Parts: sequence; structure tokens; C-alpha cells
Amino acid sequence: MTPTITAFAKSPDRGRGLARDMGVRWALEEVGQPYDVRLVPWEDFRKPAHLVIHPFGKIPTYEEGGLALFESGAIVMHIAERHPGTLFPADADARARAITWMFAALTTVQEPIVAREAFILLEKDKDWYDGRLPMLDKAVRERLEQLSARLGGAEWLDGQFSAGDLLMINVLRRPAGRSFLGEYPNLDAYVARGEARPAFKRAFEAQHEVFERAVAVEA
Amino acid sequence: MTPTITAFAKSPDRGRGLARDMGVRWALEEVGQPYDVRLVPWEDFRKPAHLVIHPFGKIPTYEEGGLALFESGAIVMHIAERHPGTLFPADADARARAITWMFAALTTVQEPIVAREAFILLEKDKDWYDGRLPMLDKAVRERLEQLSARLGGAEWLDGQFSAGDLLMINVLRRPAGRSFLGEYPNLDAYVARGEARPAFKRAFEAQHEVFERAVAVEA
Repeated sequence: MTPTITAFAKSPDRGRGLARDMGVRWALEEVGQPYDVRLVPWEDFRKPAHLVIHPFGKIPTYEEGGLALFESGAIVMHIAERHPGTLFPADADARARAITWMFAALTTVQEPIVAREAFILLEKDKDWYDGRLPMLDKAVRERLEQLSARLGGAEWLDGQFSAGDLLMINVLRRPAGRSFLGEYPNLDAYVARGEARPAFKRAFEAQHEVFERAVAVEA
Repeated sequence: MTPTITAFAKSPDRGRGLARDMGVRWALEEVGQPYDVRLVPWEDFRKPAHLVIHPFGKIPTYEEGGLALFESGAIVMHIAERHPGTLFPADADARARAITWMFAALTTVQEPIVAREAFILLEKDKDWYDGRLPMLDKAVRERLEQLSARLGGAEWLDGQFSAGDLLMINVLRRPAGRSFLGEYPNLDAYVARGEARPAFKRAFEAQHEVFERAVAVEA
């Protein structure tokens, strides 16, 4: 059965692969699973028909037969489990470590990156903008420095490419993280390796095309 | 083999069950898995011997034979998987939904709660404190309102008590969340149901005792 995911009808990131469907699309491409996309217009996010699938009124969601999931981390995990040996290693301990990196990406590493991103987006005009920004920069750098130290000269975080790398790279790609990557050349190269994967490129193109079509329709 | 977790030698929360070992202890108690605890003094968090197990210099970690994990979400998942039918339902779709709630707890719901918590802790004396706090309150309320709407009159988030409820209740217990629970009586009762579980009480007592002993040694 072909799963259906949801995505923005017109993404606020203008098709730069920063909306949360990007990680799910990338995972589906890595495992070679075809999928359908249902586009959700902005005005539908808080309607009951969407909230019944996603109680927090966001994208993406994942529907497959009678199963409905939300949270991109949980969806990527579901996809990884359905296709053993691709996004999860076969060895049980290695799989547990890949899951550790999934949580590390979406909590410990993402938290300061999203805090900085939201601050720049929402509080640019506030009196306290210049006073607070250095604190947020410092918090991002602290995480990146620790991650850089752990990655060292390795290709991926723990042996073969896994769902942990996929989510970590997807977090580091966010502008509030990316703007510091020049200070950590091994992380910069790590993100570049992820973005060079054919599955990443197919996923990126797919979400970009949705945005281009939305703009063309309006023109 | 008995797993070993790490915890603060003297927790900054003064034994109120807010340090990150609490969720892991609770999960271990729910499945009836005995465990050892290695206490980490504050000055050891950034030392190589700890960073090799936890690259971000935090607690908890989980060691079992040759396996070393970090991130409380990943550790709770590992424990749930080792003891099928307790923290994860046997049905595959229900298990995927429980995992969705685990990620929802640690990302979507936790994010505004931790943002408010860190702000109150670190920026109380800043000029912008009074100006910014209402924004953070609003973000927490928005999430709690959505969660309250989804929970409705149910006992747990999706059928039987799961690892998703465990992590969600553990997030809602944090002061920055708890201070709003009076506005959402069903969430307040949900947290109370979690805290009334014998496994929660055993975990709470165990971490509390560590703090009391640390204080007694200093006295």
C-alpha cells in the first residue's frame, strides 16, 4: 500500500527543503518507497479534518491503510523499521545507537537551533534583539562544537549512514545551524555528504517542485 | 545483565524528579528491570571519560554489556522494546502511535516548556524579562490546549499506558508546564494518574534518596 504524507500547499520556506516533510521524503527515497502527497493549504491546518490526524496542526503526517502518524521523527522511524538494513543497521545494538542519534538530533541539537531561528524570525524588531542574540549564538555553537568533537573524521555518526544521520543532517541544514558550519569543517563536510546523496536530491526536487507549481498557479 | 544508568551526584532540582534520569528510572520500574546507578559529580560532566559515553556532557546514559546509549527518549525506547507488551503495545500500529507520542512529548510539547523554563532560570534579571515572558506563556498554552483537546476524557493518549504517556507526563510535570495545568483539568488529572502509578513513585523515591544522601554527606 502506498503511503500518503502531507506537506504545505505553499511552503513558507519557499521550497528550500526546510519544511518538515523534507526528512520524511528523504527517508522514503532512501528506502525506495513510492508515496503520495496531499497538500494542505494554510487555512486548513487548524480545521478538525486535519487536527484529527495531527493534533498540533502541523505537517507532515503519514497515512497507510488504517494507520495515521505525525511527528517527522516517528514517521522516519516507522519507515526505517519497515525497510530493515537501509536506514537502520541489522545489528540490534547499532540500531539502538542510531535511535539515540535520532533523538539527539531532534532534541539536544535541534533545540538551540530552533530557538535561534524562531528568535530571528519573530523578534527581529524587539528592543532586546541585539542583547539576546549572542546568548543564542553561544548555545548553538556549544552543541555544534560537541557534535564536531564526536564526529571527528568519521563519514557518519556511527558506522553506516542511518536514520540518525538523516535527521541530524536535516537539523544542521536549517539556516540557524548552517550559518555556523564554516567554523566546524567536519560538520560542514558531513552535511555536504548528506546533501550529495541521490535520495536527498530526489526529495529536495520533489518538495521544490510543489512550491514552484504553487507560485506558477498564482502568476 | 543489569544495566547501569548515570544520574547527577547532586541534582540541581534538589531531588524533585526533574532531572533526566527520572524518565529512565520510571521506565525501568514499569517493566520491572533492576538497574545500577553511577553518580556523576558536576565537575566530571565535561571530562573525556564521560563525553565518550555522552558526547553532549549530560545525564542520563545507559550501559549494558557493550552497549552505551544516551538521550532519555532513546533509552526509554530501548527499555520498552526489551520488554514487549508493557510500555509498547503488542500491535504494530499501536506501537507506531506510541512512538509518535514519544517524539511529540520530547519535541513539539517539550520545546515551548523548556524555552520558558530556561528563560525564567537564566534571564530573570534582564531588562526584557517582563516584555518577553507573555510570548513564552502563550506558546506553552497553545500546546497544552491542543494536547488537552486531543486527550479529551481518555485515560491515556492512545489506549493502554505506553512509553508515549510516560514521556508526555514527565514533560508536563516540569514547572514551566505544570504551572498552567490548572487551566486544563483533564491534563492535570492525566499527570496525577501518571504520578499515582507505583512505578513512578518508586522511581521518584530512588532519585530523591540520592539527593538526600548527598545533602547528608555535606552536613
